[in-house]
Amino acid sequence: MNKMVQIYFDHNATTAVDGAVLDVMLPYFQEEFGNPSSRHLRGMTARRAVDRARGQVADSVGVQPEQVVFCSGGSEANNLFIQGAAGYLKPARIIVSAIEHPCVLRPAQELARKVHEKWNLRRLAVDCLGRVSLDDATNAMREQQPGLVSVMLANNETGVIQDVAAVAEKAREHGAWTHTDAVQAFGKVPVDFAALKVHAMTLSAHKIYGPKGAAALIMDKRLLLKPLILGGGHENGLRSGTENVPAIVGFGAACELAKIRMAEIAARVAAMRARLEQELIEMGAVIFGLGAERLPNTCYFALPGIEGDTLVVRLDKAGFAVASGAACSSVTPGQSHVLEAMGVEPMLARCAVRVSLGSANTPLQVEDFLKALVNTLTGLRNMNSAMV
Amino acid sequence: MNKMVQIYFDHNATTAVDGAVLDVMLPYFQEEFGNPSSRHLRGMTARRAVDRARGQVADSVGVQPEQVVFCSGGSEANNLFIQGAAGYLKPARIIVSAIEHPCVLRPAQELARKVHEKWNLRRLAVDCLGRVSLDDATNAMREQQPGLVSVMLANNETGVIQDVAAVAEKAREHGAWTHTDAVQAFGKVPVDFAALKVHAMTLSAHKIYGPKGAAALIMDKRLLLKPLILGGGHENGLRSGTENVPAIVGFGAACELAKIRMAEIAARVAAMRARLEQELIEMGAVIFGLGAERLPNTCYFALPGIEGDTLVVRLDKAGFAVASGAACSSVTPGQSHVLEAMGVEPMLARCAVRVSLGSANTPLQVEDFLKALVNTLTGLRNMNSAMV
Repeated sequence: MNKMVQIYFDHNATTAVDGAVLDVMLPYFQEEFGNPSSRHLRGMTARRAVDRARGQVADSVGVQPEQVVFCSGGSEANNLFIQGAAGYLKPARIIVSAIEHPCVLRPAQELARKVHEKWNLRRLAVDCLGRVSLDDATNAMREQQPGLVSVMLANNETGVIQDVAAVAEKAREHGAWTHTDAVQAFGKVPVDFAALKVHAMTLSAHKIYGPKGAAALIMDKRLLLKPLILGGGHENGLRSGTENVPAIVGFGAACELAKIRMAEIAARVAAMRARLEQELIEMGAVIFGLGAERLPNTCYFALPGIEGDTLVVRLDKAGFAVASGAACSSVTPGQSHVLEAMGVEPMLARCAVRVSLGSANTPLQVEDFLKALVNTLTGLRNMNSAMV
Repeated sequence: MNKMVQIYFDHNATTAVDGAVLDVMLPYFQEEFGNPSSRHLRGMTARRAVDRARGQVADSVGVQPEQVVFCSGGSEANNLFIQGAAGYLKPARIIVSAIEHPCVLRPAQELARKVHEKWNLRRLAVDCLGRVSLDDATNAMREQQPGLVSVMLANNETGVIQDVAAVAEKAREHGAWTHTDAVQAFGKVPVDFAALKVHAMTLSAHKIYGPKGAAALIMDKRLLLKPLILGGGHENGLRSGTENVPAIVGFGAACELAKIRMAEIAARVAAMRARLEQELIEMGAVIFGLGAERLPNTCYFALPGIEGDTLVVRLDKAGFAVASGAACSSVTPGQSHVLEAMGVEPMLARCAVRVSLGSANTPLQVEDFLKALVNTLTGLRNMNSAMV
């Protein structure tokens, strides 16, 4: 089949850069290509472009421009918070939810493996719908003095939205610094930094129709971080390196665009998802996180007996891009740690498939997908019967 | 004046993305926007694009594709080597030249400030032409067991090329790991990883008519590094985070382009620089590094009594983009640490101006620049006389 017509249902992995965003970026590759640190006209033009984008990003989550630290991606921003805050604090307990992205889990594990200044890592339990347990958060903070807490705003696999404000409030009572990885929530649902009561928050451009290569750590002004990347002192000393001007400009434009159309897209994808899930349930699917507050675009399901990986490959051939888990790892992913934390049986977890809808998807595409899914299942079941 | 006609003489700070490079990048923003970790068609297309670019980068310096670790920029790559190698080694001496970029100097200083596993930092002296002293390198390694050595291939301010192979050879005798920051040399002169005898080397795309946001650490296969950014395990576990596909694709294309036209550009800019320096000397200028082997495009000069910053601002208004020092710092740069290491008098160092030529520059632009310089100097000298 022609690759150009493949229907994309994997927006939680990455999105295409919106045409309006790319148009704003383009001049910064060739005409306005200056280094923002240069003191001539081209440098100053680039500096102004970065400043404007900083304002746009700040505005989209209700903070001041000086609270935005531009990074190369969400993974870097999450590492900057965890490693950077740990670099300033006395070792204590670090609390993260069991369903965090590996770029939060791994640096947290690393702190717990240190020879000197070793931290104590505590993972927060989630319930069967994938919601972080507030009771467990309370216990975790009572058991041992927390220094750092990180709970994602929306899970990348299930789309389940967490009560970050409640966790952050508890953490503040203990004097801990709290962070939320808002990469998946941002641009899909309204995100307000102050309302979340955290000290830091990660945002990324490429999940919101902006370019890869730009992200931000939003910071409380009182938060102190040790930078990961040292050098020329860019980003107020917190992230050295020549700014990726076109990507940062695109990030700003994507934030503006999200502000304008987020509600409209959310309503549209929510209706498509409702239709999709209604049919999936009729087909005997389990919908993970159903009943919890979820991102409007994400449908994470399992058809018992049909392996997720197999289904993804078959649907790919049938012209639909979906995911069997998180597209966050280059190494063999194995079972989803998110489903494991939710207590999903390994046999069922192996059947997990994620559909994540986006701006360009249409109800007709959902209908076509459902037909393709029925055909694929028929084919797979016939094959299974023939093999018996 | 119209900003579009400003003549750009600051290619060591950054370059415009070449049209041919941008053309190759463009499909990866919108049509082939997949996440290389996704297992559907769009993901696999993105993965193949990254692999192809990895081959192009590897080929340009004579290594295997698996020796290329893609990073977001030269600063990150330099930090990855220094912090990453130190994370695997027992603390020893770290030796860097006194004229390294801040993104080598600062992480080296940080190792020497650690409470636990503190390293001993030793800066190598340079001679009055800005060449790293091989005698001092010998001494530094004899005084105390070196663990890490980093000497840049070409200095960003003077353009002076260092005998990295000689330093690396000495370092190997002591069992130390050697790195070279080749960001300024790469694409301007031939760079061969094996010939340099180092264990690691930093390359960047945006100095060679490629995009900002892509760089590489080239590694000896035996080198062990602790990653800076932990997460999904991308780049063989050494650099987690969704690959910046368009920028990486552009980096690969820029490497290909450099291979084809590097010699031609080098000859052209060398001729223009010769003309420029001849006139500058007639005007009473000091040319830093003159007589040492230098990059063909870089002219670092001082007109005694004329402050560099002032000259840069005046030339900017007259339509020429030049630098007063390295465009590597967002903070007040103060005096050039490179000129200080060369023993240049502070009064003269304050007069330093860098012209760095590139592919699109013409002899006519150099003539226009010389006229503008004469006019500017006349203006400044008249002003000075009037003020007396």
